[in-house]
Amino acid sequence: MPNFTAAQLTEIAERILCRIPHTRGEDARVVAEHLTSAHLAGHDSHGIIRIPQYHQHAREGRLNAAATVEIERETPGTALLNGNWTWGQVTAKQAMDIAIEKARHHHIAAVGARQCYHVGRVGSFALLAAGRGFIARIWCNGHGIVRVAPWGGAEARLATNPVAIAVPTGGRPILVDITTSVVAEGKIRVAKNKGEKVPDGWLLDKDGAPTNDPAALYDGGTLLPFGGPVGYKGFGLGMVVDLLGGALTGAGCGVMSKEKIGNGLLVEVVDPAAFVERDVFLRRVDDYVAYLRSAKAAPGVKEILMPGEPEFRMEDQRRRDGISVDDETWRQVCETAAALGATL
Amino acid sequence: MPNFTAAQLTEIAERILCRIPHTRGEDARVVAEHLTSAHLAGHDSHGIIRIPQYHQHAREGRLNAAATVEIERETPGTALLNGNWTWGQVTAKQAMDIAIEKARHHHIAAVGARQCYHVGRVGSFALLAAGRGFIARIWCNGHGIVRVAPWGGAEARLATNPVAIAVPTGGRPILVDITTSVVAEGKIRVAKNKGEKVPDGWLLDKDGAPTNDPAALYDGGTLLPFGGPVGYKGFGLGMVVDLLGGALTGAGCGVMSKEKIGNGLLVEVVDPAAFVERDVFLRRVDDYVAYLRSAKAAPGVKEILMPGEPEFRMEDQRRRDGISVDDETWRQVCETAAALGATL
Repeated sequence: MPNFTAAQLTEIAERILCRIPHTRGEDARVVAEHLTSAHLAGHDSHGIIRIPQYHQHAREGRLNAAATVEIERETPGTALLNGNWTWGQVTAKQAMDIAIEKARHHHIAAVGARQCYHVGRVGSFALLAAGRGFIARIWCNGHGIVRVAPWGGAEARLATNPVAIAVPTGGRPILVDITTSVVAEGKIRVAKNKGEKVPDGWLLDKDGAPTNDPAALYDGGTLLPFGGPVGYKGFGLGMVVDLLGGALTGAGCGVMSKEKIGNGLLVEVVDPAAFVERDVFLRRVDDYVAYLRSAKAAPGVKEILMPGEPEFRMEDQRRRDGISVDDETWRQVCETAAALGATL
Repeated sequence: MPNFTAAQLTEIAERILCRIPHTRGEDARVVAEHLTSAHLAGHDSHGIIRIPQYHQHAREGRLNAAATVEIERETPGTALLNGNWTWGQVTAKQAMDIAIEKARHHHIAAVGARQCYHVGRVGSFALLAAGRGFIARIWCNGHGIVRVAPWGGAEARLATNPVAIAVPTGGRPILVDITTSVVAEGKIRVAKNKGEKVPDGWLLDKDGAPTNDPAALYDGGTLLPFGGPVGYKGFGLGMVVDLLGGALTGAGCGVMSKEKIGNGLLVEVVDPAAFVERDVFLRRVDDYVAYLRSAKAAPGVKEILMPGEPEFRMEDQRRRDGISVDDETWRQVCETAAALGATL
């Protein structure tokens, strides 16, 4: 299993990505840094394993590396971007950059994006704002593929529709980065490939009956919204992601139209300074975190962790020990590199 | 069990409330209409049952009916209100009215409120915006009383911290109005009073062990965040409610300070017209709702309902059949009316 530093992994990814026809050097850099940041956070499913898929999609025209992001509508506090199916990370980063700039001047901003190719790990864009002292929320729908039924239903109509919310602190941000389904689809695929059952409360089969068989998802079954017995709450939030990220932006929702597979985004940024001095806000957040941590731990729990903290700890570890890439992923990445004539 | 029309119930509530010393007539009207709307939605726990409690709190100084709402900070798209502990519904309505007015001019708005007495049913304020074609979100923390532990913890640090999100449609709005705890505290109290057990996944006892005994909540136990096995998601959202509604606004979070019991609010309004023509947006939402409803129902489910729909159906029924008030609640309300010299 090869092991890389973050800088090495970014350089490898960049070298390959910039060989995908029409990819601009700066875009390859943005995507490569994004893939590495996913590995650092421990989300290998959003790392360089995606490179062969991106290459394939570029050949099929689902990704249009030559295109650039356009601003279709704009007011002082809002904008609507058309990604024109260029690199999704580039579209998402631009949406966040514009939202931050608008929030600097107007304290709050909302920027939508449509025709947006796969953006990767949503939370990493929210962190861009928190790193500069802003509060960020990203409502990111998936369209073109569905996995989740409406509450009470037995046919998929929604994607796993994540929400990411980042809040700055005196140290590392709070990052709530969650799918509105009980788990991401990748976990079902892994269980299926390993021949394992999935826990109760994850899946319904094609008739709407509970099942522990991961294969059921790929045979007309559905992934449940999060919430367990009150799963209507997770369904409601998943709907809101579609309404903000898909309907408001025009990206589209679910498989309503013949839209290409992609993400619809609404990025929102709030400047705490509209409400309170920046340093006072950070102190309030830090005091609140200390107050939460002061709760007695439940049996078997070593420590109370804040949202995002497991990922930051993984990042510290991987910056120290390097990022290991499994042999099969590495083989596929090398194959793609060879096909593109990239030297690693 | 007496039965009233909505207009009768509002008039009864208004007559009593305006006798609570220093209460302005227009404030009594706002609160009375709010209490009736809670009954119409089927949420009797937020209806006239609250009147004796409000009277008690006014006498104790927790509610300051003489005070008025002040704007402490303001920018074109944001404001921070100080409710000065006047009627909570008045503060919440004013926050929403200001946010709507700002969104009319600037497309997006965020208005916070602190020193805010009990606001009642949060969703009803979100509906004010949706009724005028805007998207609204309300992050409403509770402070001064806590029920929910941080994920992994066994000591309460957060209130049940609801979020309400309303989106306009061509017909009745979508309304997601949920606590970030698995259920509201009232359900535990009802089970305790009836001597019933609560379902698995609702409660931990004071040692952090799962329990079905509702009394455990009032003996150092905690209510779980929503999400079941992925309850860290509900906890993360509950934290966000505290950070936006409590820390950003200065209302306070949990029982960190010696703050009075109240609600901290962040009200956000988005004008869809910043992104797309208003009628196109409504059509997209209606098409999306029809698409969700077209899913096959799961076994035992008669019909797929949208968030907020059960409450709208209840409203239709109660407008037709009247609102019944249980005898004990009616007795308490009459007692309060007599104490205040209100004639019903």
